[in-house]
Amino acid sequence: MTRPEGRCAVRLRHNDRMPLDPAIAARLKRTGDGLVPAVVQQHDTGEVLMLAWMDDEALHRTLTTGRATYWSRSRRAYWVKGDTSGNVQHVRSVALDCDGDTILLKVDQVGAACHTGDRTCFDAGALRVAPE
Amino acid sequence: MTRPEGRCAVRLRHNDRMPLDPAIAARLKRTGDGLVPAVVQQHDTGEVLMLAWMDDEALHRTLTTGRATYWSRSRRAYWVKGDTSGNVQHVRSVALDCDGDTILLKVDQVGAACHTGDRTCFDAGALRVAPE
Repeated sequence: MTRPEGRCAVRLRHNDRMPLDPAIAARLKRTGDGLVPAVVQQHDTGEVLMLAWMDDEALHRTLTTGRATYWSRSRRAYWVKGDTSGNVQHVRSVALDCDGDTILLKVDQVGAACHTGDRTCFDAGALRVAPE
Repeated sequence: MTRPEGRCAVRLRHNDRMPLDPAIAARLKRTGDGLVPAVVQQHDTGEVLMLAWMDDEALHRTLTTGRATYWSRSRRAYWVKGDTSGNVQHVRSVALDCDGDTILLKVDQVGAACHTGDRTCFDAGALRVAPE
């Protein structure tokens, strides 16, 4: 088979683009559906803002653009946080955990992180804990 | 069928015990294998220590004992953090997120949270992020 030339060459399919650094990809342990949970924390206050999911491409886009980019499990699409709401996350640092099965993003969150308008997704959900 | 009486009555099977509060159970959205990710944060410094997994029973035990208790996916068993290592997590607060699919635990971590001996599971895993 031959590939189309000329103008068609720029219409690359998603998977033909520069992928995630293979050295990083080799460290990731993904769930059965190819995803890794990403904990998102406000870099200066330490607030845990939300948890989202990344596949290799979402992590690649996050690392190369500095804008937090996730995989939406419900919409089955990439999602640049803030593209719709304006509540952008500027990425300050990214780390994998010891097992490569969790990502920690430290970000500078513009406005509310939660779609409810709360600053974090955990603000309204406190449960009662028995004293030890 | 009749049930054994007397002394046998105290040898209840795991699932016969008091379960997680149904009002909380109804708010949980679990993965296909019945689990919810739990982000674990040091209550005063804000460090994100680790991510672990809970099923209903692990959350119930955490809420009722004040000791962080998880489901180990690799060992397929409940796991009271620190029972082997001594690096206990005393639970200060627990919250569900807006969708009920993530738990945030604020704890007082004794010693290292990570099995590598690092304070957090993210200490050794920094990735390079391109400037925005």
